[in-house]
Amino acid sequence: MLAVKSRKIAFIGAGNVSWHLAQALATTGHQIISVYSRTMAGSKALAYRLPDAQPTTSLDLHQTEAEIVLIAIPDAALATVAEQIKVKPGTVVAHTSGSQPLSMLGNIAGASTGVFYPLQTFSKVKPIDLAQVPILVEATHEHTQLELEELALSISHRVLPVDSAARQQLHLAAVFACNFTNHLLGISQQLLQEAGLPTELLLPLIKETIAKAAQQNPYTVQTGPAIRHDANVIQAHLQMLQRHPDLQALYQNLTVSIQETGKKGHSAGTTI
Amino acid sequence: MLAVKSRKIAFIGAGNVSWHLAQALATTGHQIISVYSRTMAGSKALAYRLPDAQPTTSLDLHQTEAEIVLIAIPDAALATVAEQIKVKPGTVVAHTSGSQPLSMLGNIAGASTGVFYPLQTFSKVKPIDLAQVPILVEATHEHTQLELEELALSISHRVLPVDSAARQQLHLAAVFACNFTNHLLGISQQLLQEAGLPTELLLPLIKETIAKAAQQNPYTVQTGPAIRHDANVIQAHLQMLQRHPDLQALYQNLTVSIQETGKKGHSAGTTI
Repeated sequence: MLAVKSRKIAFIGAGNVSWHLAQALATTGHQIISVYSRTMAGSKALAYRLPDAQPTTSLDLHQTEAEIVLIAIPDAALATVAEQIKVKPGTVVAHTSGSQPLSMLGNIAGASTGVFYPLQTFSKVKPIDLAQVPILVEATHEHTQLELEELALSISHRVLPVDSAARQQLHLAAVFACNFTNHLLGISQQLLQEAGLPTELLLPLIKETIAKAAQQNPYTVQTGPAIRHDANVIQAHLQMLQRHPDLQALYQNLTVSIQETGKKGHSAGTTI
Repeated sequence: MLAVKSRKIAFIGAGNVSWHLAQALATTGHQIISVYSRTMAGSKALAYRLPDAQPTTSLDLHQTEAEIVLIAIPDAALATVAEQIKVKPGTVVAHTSGSQPLSMLGNIAGASTGVFYPLQTFSKVKPIDLAQVPILVEATHEHTQLELEELALSISHRVLPVDSAARQQLHLAAVFACNFTNHLLGISQQLLQEAGLPTELLLPLIKETIAKAAQQNPYTVQTGPAIRHDANVIQAHLQMLQRHPDLQALYQNLTVSIQETGKKGHSAGTTI
């Protein structure tokens, strides 16, 4: 990581994202001066893990030394908090949301706004190597962009300037690749359980699927009954799903989508 | 792996599955005596990589020393090949298909039939550590079951007896976990490309999704706008997919399926 000037940073929010970002930034030499949460208990839980941080329940930061304010709160609360926050002139205020545009911060008096979005799911109990996590940066002004990129480079190898429109499309892509994929893995485990099989049985195959997708366009290595137009197997599978009409519908939709994509000229694989 | 008695094995088929199984079995001390393919070129390509194997285009093995015959050919050809194959009495004949029942082999005169199914996708160019690949075994007779399990244990740490019904359900589960997941990863890469973003950007997030699914029931760690019933984000995403009506439909179906599953009492996560 890049060695950079130590910055004085205030965190708004003490949830999973703040938890990991604040500790990583403190470790790399920045000074986290305060952690805001709606409750004192919430802010203390994180602030007391950081050497220089005061817990607070006030959004008025304009008497503090904060140079950069990072907002990591639920999307729905973002507009309200942005309206209430007070900072001293020249402060950089950035939110950390993947799905919200930069404009969501509105006009915070005296502030230069930006986005500082770490592309990863966080949970407090699981340590994450932030160095490998892409951080996507956007700002209203060029100098703020550079400041946020420099901050990002102090904790991650992978920093990209990405505007709000592209970030929104990225979020949509993540819904397909992660949220929807997770749901399919859930269905798969449910089916294994119903057959009395261990749920980890498919893990090597799943890992292989992901590894392949990392190397080649997944469309070109698609395998299975759908892309083979194997009507017998597809019918048998739909029959097996009779007790789960919702899964039956999903199976049919995904099969059609794979076949439609196949028509558009991507080649088919042969296994599974 | 278990050190076992060296067996004389004939392979029917010289495709990806035979390619990996035959070489692994030869390496561990078994004798691959012949490789059948419809063309001599096909059978030679594999046979010449094995110390003791004759290439052949004949399914009449009843003058050979084969004790075990492993059939690894496309599902559609299985019934026809099973009708034509000739073996000497007492030979074990097993197919390697995940989706076909044991009964697909019919009655091969003198043979005791079984299934020897390695649960992995194979491609000739990519080496695979078979030791980590589960091998699912089924047989008409107890002694054949033991023979095939012993053979499997000589190349894999993970051998399970699984009957045809459970194996078919496993195959269905694999379609969801691998084929359908691969398609979603393809969609995700397409969306990233459209936004001018690097396709590998989501890889850390995807790996984290898989790692989580390996540790917990995916239903209980589901995240995203669907499980949060975040109507604003869902509407925005559907709007963004307007140019892709098929993806729009798929997004809607998966969202409903996640929400239906959520109703059945699985708890929701908060990120992405």
